[in-house]
Amino acid sequence: MRVRLKDVADHAGVSVKTVSNVVNNWEYVTDATRERVQKALDELGYRPNLSARSLRTGRTNLIALALPRLHEPYFAELADCVVRAAEDHGLTVLISQTDGRREREQQVVSGFRPQFIDGLLFSPLALEWDDLEEIPGHPPVVLLGERLAAGGAADHVAVDNVAAAQRATQHLVELGRKRIAVIGAPPSKTARTASLRLEGYKRALRKARIRLDKQLLLPVNQLHRADGAAAMATLLDLAPPPDAVFCFNDLLALGALRTLQERGVAVPSEVAVIGFDDIEESRFCSPSLTTISPDKKALAGLAVAALVQRMSVAPDAAPQELHAGFELVERESTMGRRA
Amino acid sequence: MRVRLKDVADHAGVSVKTVSNVVNNWEYVTDATRERVQKALDELGYRPNLSARSLRTGRTNLIALALPRLHEPYFAELADCVVRAAEDHGLTVLISQTDGRREREQQVVSGFRPQFIDGLLFSPLALEWDDLEEIPGHPPVVLLGERLAAGGAADHVAVDNVAAAQRATQHLVELGRKRIAVIGAPPSKTARTASLRLEGYKRALRKARIRLDKQLLLPVNQLHRADGAAAMATLLDLAPPPDAVFCFNDLLALGALRTLQERGVAVPSEVAVIGFDDIEESRFCSPSLTTISPDKKALAGLAVAALVQRMSVAPDAAPQELHAGFELVERESTMGRRA
Repeated sequence: MRVRLKDVADHAGVSVKTVSNVVNNWEYVTDATRERVQKALDELGYRPNLSARSLRTGRTNLIALALPRLHEPYFAELADCVVRAAEDHGLTVLISQTDGRREREQQVVSGFRPQFIDGLLFSPLALEWDDLEEIPGHPPVVLLGERLAAGGAADHVAVDNVAAAQRATQHLVELGRKRIAVIGAPPSKTARTASLRLEGYKRALRKARIRLDKQLLLPVNQLHRADGAAAMATLLDLAPPPDAVFCFNDLLALGALRTLQERGVAVPSEVAVIGFDDIEESRFCSPSLTTISPDKKALAGLAVAALVQRMSVAPDAAPQELHAGFELVERESTMGRRA
Repeated sequence: MRVRLKDVADHAGVSVKTVSNVVNNWEYVTDATRERVQKALDELGYRPNLSARSLRTGRTNLIALALPRLHEPYFAELADCVVRAAEDHGLTVLISQTDGRREREQQVVSGFRPQFIDGLLFSPLALEWDDLEEIPGHPPVVLLGERLAAGGAADHVAVDNVAAAQRATQHLVELGRKRIAVIGAPPSKTARTASLRLEGYKRALRKARIRLDKQLLLPVNQLHRADGAAAMATLLDLAPPPDAVFCFNDLLALGALRTLQERGVAVPSEVAVIGFDDIEESRFCSPSLTTISPDKKALAGLAVAALVQRMSVAPDAAPQELHAGFELVERESTMGRRA
């Protein structure tokens, strides 16, 4: 038999209204009461009637997450964190893959009417702010990772890419490397994240009084293993080759490691390698990969919290710029195998 | 200014009705006309008004894909194939992560009302057939990869897991291996895919007249790299250790390779390793991983086509069992580095 709110209220010794407040995640309930009600909900196995709730509140409790590519491990891991963060707010996440194509990105924003979803978390690659402004009645949007090409006014959650890239480059400098190459340099000015990372790299070189050698900056078409492998082959043909490589994501670095192994180049003694993302694979590959680890849980948590704010109490507040933390994770590809 | 169907019709020299038929992907249009209209649609940049279309056809043109874990590369790659296959039918995919928890799986089926989505592709881990029957008015469902625990009547798309596992084991036998271990043996009878793969392994051993040694069958809690690494350590402590390992997915195999490298065990000369899934990582790791490659494109294509059938012409047809192909991909972890 279905457990009703009344059953939970009796079990917890509170009013039905209080149970309802807890179930709907409203704020005017004390922590103690919330805990007592939650315990009763758990013990009785109460499942909310989602469509009734939707009718009552005018909400669907669904949010959408639109990402360029799910089969890139970084996005898949981030999506997982978003699903968990949303669950803490009683929200279910629907994920949509845009391939970074403008047409699909427009469709995501215009296709999700408010009667479908309460809000949208979005990592746009091609969309511009004008596109978003043009679409009447789109749901509240929070940008995750990437900004819109033409600035604009939406909450934006990311790591400090300049500082993180500077930290990565500085690590290679501290190991005594002088010819530090980049794989993943921005192919154009619209590659915003890559441009920020390049800026961090340049700052670290300037601080170490190392001259920038443009030969060592390799752009890539995509941020995949195959692109990293090809770029590394190009770098090894330079005379002299680099003694370190900063790859702008882990996939590129994993491809570069494969080329180094095929060519019989010792890592890290001849070429040290560092990545960016800290995907799970980087802990298990051989040699394991030194990388910048963005705090994905914090990114997801901040993004969902910002969206919940927009959806409820502060739809028209000034847009916020939110930064999640990062750390340098030192592994074998720069530090060598421990004895 | 918005491009209307009338504009496209004028441009292509056909009637508005014909353009509408093409846009709605209806079948009574010749290929030549369809091409001419598509060209006009592309040239004028026509974007369908989705909600108007939805009102007219009673369809949303959204389907949902519910998977256990997006951050497992196999599921992420499969999701990518499903998004592409659905696009060919003019459908947009929303992806939902269930974690394989029964409660979330129930929610997926009951939460997606027909007014949200036209159909559901589903890889259930915990849900039973009764759960699905109990939910009135759920959308058409096609099962992808995993079946429901208690049989039942829905279309099911998968690879032939028994045949594929037999092929993998036979490959190790052909290399002269005698002590072939398994990492990922079913921890319980509800692990249906693992049970099928174990059956294929046993068949290959029987055919080669190799006695089954239960010591060599290692169950795991999860199918992750860390579980594979730990299981490999256990196997290396056996006397004598195995001379080959069949891991029931690539992630387990990648973890096993890491342990072998840490312990200084030569791959494949001392221990040959084979996986299952052919995720992209397996092509780029060192040594690269021999694996069974399920035809993910075919899996996705068959699943979407079956769902489209259910949604339109044959909602009540007898349930089908559909198999996609697979192939053995021989790489360094069993064949060694080529000179």
